[in-house]
Amino acid sequence: MDVIERIVLSDVRTIARVLRDIDDEIPSARDILRELYPHTGKAHVIGFTGPPGVGKSALVDQITINYRNAGKTIGILAVDPTSPFTGGAILGDRIRMQRHFLDPGVFIRSLATRGHLGGLSKFTIDMVSVLDASGKDVIIIETVGVGQDEVEIVNNAHTTILVTIPGMGDDIQTIKAGIMEIGDIFVVNKAERLGSYQTVRELNNLIQLGAARRGPDDWEPQVLETVAVKSRGIKELYEVIEKHRSHLLGTHSEKWRQILEKRARIQLMNILKDQALSAIIERIEASGDSVDQMVQKIVDRESDPYTIVQQIIDRQLK
Amino acid sequence: MDVIERIVLSDVRTIARVLRDIDDEIPSARDILRELYPHTGKAHVIGFTGPPGVGKSALVDQITINYRNAGKTIGILAVDPTSPFTGGAILGDRIRMQRHFLDPGVFIRSLATRGHLGGLSKFTIDMVSVLDASGKDVIIIETVGVGQDEVEIVNNAHTTILVTIPGMGDDIQTIKAGIMEIGDIFVVNKAERLGSYQTVRELNNLIQLGAARRGPDDWEPQVLETVAVKSRGIKELYEVIEKHRSHLLGTHSEKWRQILEKRARIQLMNILKDQALSAIIERIEASGDSVDQMVQKIVDRESDPYTIVQQIIDRQLK
Repeated sequence: MDVIERIVLSDVRTIARVLRDIDDEIPSARDILRELYPHTGKAHVIGFTGPPGVGKSALVDQITINYRNAGKTIGILAVDPTSPFTGGAILGDRIRMQRHFLDPGVFIRSLATRGHLGGLSKFTIDMVSVLDASGKDVIIIETVGVGQDEVEIVNNAHTTILVTIPGMGDDIQTIKAGIMEIGDIFVVNKAERLGSYQTVRELNNLIQLGAARRGPDDWEPQVLETVAVKSRGIKELYEVIEKHRSHLLGTHSEKWRQILEKRARIQLMNILKDQALSAIIERIEASGDSVDQMVQKIVDRESDPYTIVQQIIDRQLK
Repeated sequence: MDVIERIVLSDVRTIARVLRDIDDEIPSARDILRELYPHTGKAHVIGFTGPPGVGKSALVDQITINYRNAGKTIGILAVDPTSPFTGGAILGDRIRMQRHFLDPGVFIRSLATRGHLGGLSKFTIDMVSVLDASGKDVIIIETVGVGQDEVEIVNNAHTTILVTIPGMGDDIQTIKAGIMEIGDIFVVNKAERLGSYQTVRELNNLIQLGAARRGPDDWEPQVLETVAVKSRGIKELYEVIEKHRSHLLGTHSEKWRQILEKRARIQLMNILKDQALSAIIERIEASGDSVDQMVQKIVDRESDPYTIVQQIIDRQLK
């Protein structure tokens, strides 16, 4: 049986190995991704985003239990841009691992930013493709909600859930800025804390402010309170997520396709940027020129990067 | 007088306009950057990075006063990736602005992540170039220390300062991971708080752990305590920053050049990636093909992005 078949049959070891190959930028991973492509596009991709400490991991853990009880398989990618230096795993993840360790219907993987040339989002999208091809019904991407990479990652999800906690003034500001644009569901976790009601009200007010910009067929963002560590409000969250999925797939199924188009476009551009750069650099070095020499010329102010790039493009592109 | 001359003579309005043009991706900004390039490379670029709430703005504000007293001119770029959605300015910045508002020797600008195609770092580097060409002696880049963009931004600085506060367990973890690699100076701000001594000791221990990897000519990272809002420890911080600058420029001046080389390389690659992508897309559309059709083919699984990118490269590159 070849790699592709093993992934499609959801073989855990093969999936783990291919994800590692993607992370390590092993060239053969690209061929695998190409062959896997026809098997992708079916999973419901859910993004959980929010600042550190709001309990995203606990929420994802709880939602996973709900999906498992409904007989669905899950892939989880936890993206941690706060450890860009080592590629180390998230501690919390290891704890979560334990609970689902023996369940073949759950696949969990942590991803740390490692200064990849192509950006974190490219790698995450590739990994989503692998999990998608492996037949996972639901793929959850968990990110700390800051930075452009995370915005791009969130752009890839069908359903985006913004998580906050009571009284997080600044983060409400952050959410405020983005509320119209990316949040489908807002979760106030740790809702047993003081001020939860107020945070919910603020969020609802913000959603109302955006009402004028929504058409009759548009989804109205929902606000929910949860206490993830006590499993409170999780079933309701699960139901709202499913409602959003039905909304995308139901009478408005063009929305599901729009998300797939957006994802395909980002993926195409990311791969093109990456591959074009590699191909151009290869051609530069093959022609006897050297990037190092170009860098020296720039540092010595004999030329500038804009002029050099223009020369490269004139020479290398047809 | 043309734009270039006005920038070199440090005309505030012209600088502001060109920075805005860069931010808005106005094509003419590229020509200006090219012409400014020979005037760049002189400023001391300092990066301040750390999680939200540690008091980076207050520190930058205080250090600015020290540089002004020493007769040096300052440019400050405050990068806020936590508001990726609106491009709105940081509130704290407006407060800072007031203090230095009438001082022509200080130029402050906030930058929000706006989902730029080329990444935030490209824009920041371009803006550093403008301030550099305008003759600013010192350019401070202030970022929230998460995400790949910020790592790239920090890579552009001569001197990198990581800011934390007492008892920030998780963030010490983050710093721990990066300590050997990027921090030249570590600041424990809000040092009047409980646990400051312990945080300093932890940081010093980590620096000692990295001692084996440092050569005799390498800079040994320094740890300082500050209380920025009370101006405590600021003079000491200023002196250590200057000591680091002397280290880079002094008997080890190849280090200053290495940083310039690193910056030139990143800049060259960023511009190349960007321009190559635009040029390729232009050629695709000019040849009667369409990116939209390619996206549709991907969504319909008639093809995959890897195969399409390979076809594009084969067709468009010489």
